[in-house]
Amino acid sequence: MRLLLKNGIIISMNPQKEIMKGDILIENDKIKKIEKKIENEADEIIELSERVVLPGFVQSHVHLSQTIFRNSAENRKLLEWLEERIYPLESLHTPESLRISAMLGITEMLKSGVTTIVDFGSVKYYEEVIETIYEAGIRAGVGKIMMDKGFEGLREKIDTAIDESVSLLEKWHNKEKRIFYLLEPRFVLSSSFELLRETVKISESKNVKIHTHTSENKQETEKVKEITGMLPFEYYEKIGMVGKNVFFAHAVYIEQKEIEIIKKTKTGIVHCPITNLKLGSGIAPVPILLRNKINVGIGSDGAPANNNLDIFQEMKTASLIHRPFYGIDELDAFSVLEMATVNGARLLGIENITGTIEEEKKADLVILNLEKINSFPYTDLYSAIVFSASSSNVEMVFVDGRMLVKNGKLLIWDEEKILKNAKSIFKKTFLNKRR
Amino acid sequence: MRLLLKNGIIISMNPQKEIMKGDILIENDKIKKIEKKIENEADEIIELSERVVLPGFVQSHVHLSQTIFRNSAENRKLLEWLEERIYPLESLHTPESLRISAMLGITEMLKSGVTTIVDFGSVKYYEEVIETIYEAGIRAGVGKIMMDKGFEGLREKIDTAIDESVSLLEKWHNKEKRIFYLLEPRFVLSSSFELLRETVKISESKNVKIHTHTSENKQETEKVKEITGMLPFEYYEKIGMVGKNVFFAHAVYIEQKEIEIIKKTKTGIVHCPITNLKLGSGIAPVPILLRNKINVGIGSDGAPANNNLDIFQEMKTASLIHRPFYGIDELDAFSVLEMATVNGARLLGIENITGTIEEEKKADLVILNLEKINSFPYTDLYSAIVFSASSSNVEMVFVDGRMLVKNGKLLIWDEEKILKNAKSIFKKTFLNKRR
Repeated sequence: MRLLLKNGIIISMNPQKEIMKGDILIENDKIKKIEKKIENEADEIIELSERVVLPGFVQSHVHLSQTIFRNSAENRKLLEWLEERIYPLESLHTPESLRISAMLGITEMLKSGVTTIVDFGSVKYYEEVIETIYEAGIRAGVGKIMMDKGFEGLREKIDTAIDESVSLLEKWHNKEKRIFYLLEPRFVLSSSFELLRETVKISESKNVKIHTHTSENKQETEKVKEITGMLPFEYYEKIGMVGKNVFFAHAVYIEQKEIEIIKKTKTGIVHCPITNLKLGSGIAPVPILLRNKINVGIGSDGAPANNNLDIFQEMKTASLIHRPFYGIDELDAFSVLEMATVNGARLLGIENITGTIEEEKKADLVILNLEKINSFPYTDLYSAIVFSASSSNVEMVFVDGRMLVKNGKLLIWDEEKILKNAKSIFKKTFLNKRR
Repeated sequence: MRLLLKNGIIISMNPQKEIMKGDILIENDKIKKIEKKIENEADEIIELSERVVLPGFVQSHVHLSQTIFRNSAENRKLLEWLEERIYPLESLHTPESLRISAMLGITEMLKSGVTTIVDFGSVKYYEEVIETIYEAGIRAGVGKIMMDKGFEGLREKIDTAIDESVSLLEKWHNKEKRIFYLLEPRFVLSSSFELLRETVKISESKNVKIHTHTSENKQETEKVKEITGMLPFEYYEKIGMVGKNVFFAHAVYIEQKEIEIIKKTKTGIVHCPITNLKLGSGIAPVPILLRNKINVGIGSDGAPANNNLDIFQEMKTASLIHRPFYGIDELDAFSVLEMATVNGARLLGIENITGTIEEEKKADLVILNLEKINSFPYTDLYSAIVFSASSSNVEMVFVDGRMLVKNGKLLIWDEEKILKNAKSIFKKTFLNKRR
């Protein structure tokens, strides 16, 4: 199957930062050719009429299991937000509610042009989410949450956490180069030293990546220091949970010493600016991380902390929030677009297959129509994408060369039906329920 | 003409903060009755099926003349942004380009549920904009920009500035209680002491309000101190440009002394958080202003500084941006919604006719469908509106009881045609032109 996209404005995000008017030939799941003009080689032709073609966005930290808790955990800072609302709600999940929660989140993200997500999973029934992701056709890093401390309704024995993770890993990791298994201990406050050590061992023996949270909130960071007697990243270094195979969400409260550990070990970071503001956590020192050539992706985190899963909002906020402190030059529109594409791919170690528009990469693409009332004129393309555009500009989304969104509408599922089901499941499973 | 809106979730924003399920009877331009159930009294009935009804939003500081400069003034801080891009572009405006720029902005705002705007005008041809606003059917504070210093292609003699303003004022002020004239000196760096004094005199003699910019950027604020030998608000107090008839955009760099002047004189402030971030200006101390019971509205400012005119983005950012410094409690979703409705009406002195849903007020309403993928579940209504909703949730917009938006589509103009015209006018008048 050969599909030809004609006359796009191709924002490649390749190392040469090329922007060109031209055509893209997709053969099955891959970008076969990018040229000014490609003729007569395709089974199907789509005329883009100078619409913008971008690499599909990478949402590097989300919680699909929490989408159905949107607007149900308001007015709380991180630890109360977790203890009083999120943990109790998560513990009520059934296989059915997990699946619909994942569908809500995937739909929202696909419609905003996201082609790869990193999901921070659930303790129980996580295979429901993996299957939903797989069926949707989106690319993803996935992982069951491992926690052996804290909230009673969620915590498990270390062996259970590890065994289930390994079994999911063996079944799903690298499936069709579309599903990538990640080991996901929740964070130090709910994951023991032993669990983390075991996680590192498996990561090394199976060569899979580790993804977790750290240093999001001041109180949490202080507690970690109390428990470990060290700075969080000193602790991670000590137990071997740093390096190219590890990436952390947040990193709001980190000291210079820790930045050096992150840099030296090539550990990855995910910036979640909206959630960090919403929960009153703070503002991560991302300009300093980038100056240190640390790889930083971007993520919306969970719906009840944001309260959207919208990569456009996240990019705009990421570029704006640091300006009063670091000036207007560092997280410019282009850098933020890198964070939301190629940097995200690099966190997952899949920058060879996605994150830029280059020949032989997977055809993970988003087509934007910027000739809309919210984004016209779009003379400066990077600014128009980061500061003016929204999901409403997303016309088509391709993952592995397969069109999942067309004219801004989801092709894979019936959105109305998802909402209807979600409403009834929410009522049955969560509304006014307490564990 | 009697129109009955049935079965809405009415978020009144009235002093009792009432939310009720019920019906609204609109008679001509007014809200005639709000009750649990109203029967058989209308010429037309619209079934809302528990959609949310809000007072129309008030955008308290925008520049319609700048909409067509969106994405054309990037990567600059305020003074360079003005001198190198905005002033030269504004000086190229023709009556035709002003009109289309206003149409672009009004369309964007109406579609995001705004029913009242405060426009910071243009130096020349401003009546084109007033007429466009009037024809659109939106409610507005309007004013010609007065500047007698600075950029050569824009500045005018004091007499010209004042005479033109008075003539527009006499023609348009209070027209159909929908157009309200404002005296608008640009800011201290481009408006002389004499111009400001004259402005105050006319404001007093004609009983019209004054709207201007202040203390947006550090460099600008320092210059004002140099020129006047005082803090900006000491200067305004000295020349009588404070009080219930005056409101200022920005107020990022203000000292405690100035907060006391603002409070004592009941001067109004407009918070423009996104623009203040984008131009690297800073973060206005809004929680402190609100603690001092100062009336604060909210505004997107101009499209080239934002780069949208989206009240949802502005509300979300306003609630988020202060949290790392002041905690999560002060600018909660409800307070921000007040800023974007009743506080804005109060700045214009029209809180008796708009800004809340109450009987005998004008029927300025927005109907939101929160049962969408970006906002479901909407268990906490205020949070769902401020943190989850976007223009895509706006289904209907009424001003003076007249429906201007239906099913998210503008009824008054052909949006495609506006974009097409804007494209050709932009090319002809601005693209690659320099003054």
